[in-house]
Amino acid sequence: MRDLAAHPDLLSLNTATVRERWTLPQIIEGCARHGIRAIAPWRDQVAACGLEAAARLIRTHGLRVNGYCRGGMFPAADAAGRAAAIADNRRAVDEALALGAECLILVVGGLPAGSRDIAGARRQVQDGIAAVLDHARPQGLKLAIEPLHPMYAADRACVNTLAQANDLCDALGDGVGVAVDVYHVWWDPALEREIARAGRRILGFHVCDWLVPTTDMLLDRGMMGDGVIDIPRIRGWVEAAGYADCVEVEIFSARNWWQRDPDEVLQTVRERYASVC
Amino acid sequence: MRDLAAHPDLLSLNTATVRERWTLPQIIEGCARHGIRAIAPWRDQVAACGLEAAARLIRTHGLRVNGYCRGGMFPAADAAGRAAAIADNRRAVDEALALGAECLILVVGGLPAGSRDIAGARRQVQDGIAAVLDHARPQGLKLAIEPLHPMYAADRACVNTLAQANDLCDALGDGVGVAVDVYHVWWDPALEREIARAGRRILGFHVCDWLVPTTDMLLDRGMMGDGVIDIPRIRGWVEAAGYADCVEVEIFSARNWWQRDPDEVLQTVRERYASVC
Repeated sequence: MRDLAAHPDLLSLNTATVRERWTLPQIIEGCARHGIRAIAPWRDQVAACGLEAAARLIRTHGLRVNGYCRGGMFPAADAAGRAAAIADNRRAVDEALALGAECLILVVGGLPAGSRDIAGARRQVQDGIAAVLDHARPQGLKLAIEPLHPMYAADRACVNTLAQANDLCDALGDGVGVAVDVYHVWWDPALEREIARAGRRILGFHVCDWLVPTTDMLLDRGMMGDGVIDIPRIRGWVEAAGYADCVEVEIFSARNWWQRDPDEVLQTVRERYASVC
Repeated sequence: MRDLAAHPDLLSLNTATVRERWTLPQIIEGCARHGIRAIAPWRDQVAACGLEAAARLIRTHGLRVNGYCRGGMFPAADAAGRAAAIADNRRAVDEALALGAECLILVVGGLPAGSRDIAGARRQVQDGIAAVLDHARPQGLKLAIEPLHPMYAADRACVNTLAQANDLCDALGDGVGVAVDVYHVWWDPALEREIARAGRRILGFHVCDWLVPTTDMLLDRGMMGDGVIDIPRIRGWVEAAGYADCVEVEIFSARNWWQRDPDEVLQTVRERYASVC
């Protein structure tokens, strides 16, 4: 396994981690100050800053954009809704290319309003990714399917295991891979096997921690080391599968980290990255 | 598939559904009033009533006890803790027998305090069930492993898929089966396959619904029909596998159903059982 303390350049900040108190330009400058060399920004933050301005700032500071958050949200109640989702994903691909991002993260979407057909939603996801792939593949932008924890199956993502994401990759061919976020997959008894199966398809490795108790289903993620996930074990599996790239820190924490001074957050992220992950 | 409206006798009430406002004797009398012929009581309610008194009341009203809630909680930080859990489970077996229960439901437990070793916790679960099985099997009481939703992996149950529960049954042999609760498994892409694999091992089928949004990870379950679970589809799979017994309603709902008059709750349960499940 890699010694992360010797590779500070492999730390990436998902910008959601400090989004409540800093704009994207402030985040970019903060990363430069704290020696963080890669970021994964969100579309709404980029839109607020302006795409060209964001791209220029990122270049000026020499940051990598290891992932762009996010495409997906494919299932819809009717054909018009599905077409709109695909069109929006194609725009996300274009933005990712403009930013020099290395992949587009896909949070695939849950059940359409009023639906109880999760198998149907999963078919819509596969069709939607295939349509976006037609636009992304010729331009060399990879799509990263991120399985989300099963507690988000209804409203955020009906791809809930790495096995499912691997199956989608098998069906869809080149240009699509997976993002492994420990928060979403740590519980999965098939995780080691499916990480090995994913192999070189792994396009991202995201970390935070699962708190006990967890008081909010969306916004109560923990800082690495404050919860129960054995992050080094999972990172070992990911690296054994051939992954040799960034460790991206993504913490949604309305009650704790989002309340703190972002400079303190980034310092803690750097320390925990080196000592815990 | 069975027509539930023609089989009111197959409705079972998990007593947690009305536990906030009724004691066990009140629940038993309420079930008799509403024509509910089976219950699944909890240990703390039985203890509050007294084991012999509870058994007598249940007999007096001619109720079936299709399951007893619950054993499990095996993993512990040290050997003394694990032994205490096994001893407590053996007492639960004895109580289940005294009540004439048809199985003991197992919620297997999560990570021991301070542990990040989920694989180790899962080994402890298997060892614990094996030890309890030595006590239950000769007396003819079946143990039902209930996989819990992955959001409970840390603190309630590290058996999170029906595949895992089936694997445990394969390893442990006769006398142990599974309980399928739609709330815990509805999201699982392998569900249909694993239900077929479970076959005659299915000892219980539990229903409620997954609300969108879900505002509490433990106490915000919905009444059947108010959420996104396709209950008849899953019941069809369970019956195709050979299950022909009770449909047990178990709703933890601090903000809604627990606030209501239990007579209204039981009437709604009966209606939804017949019209939705």
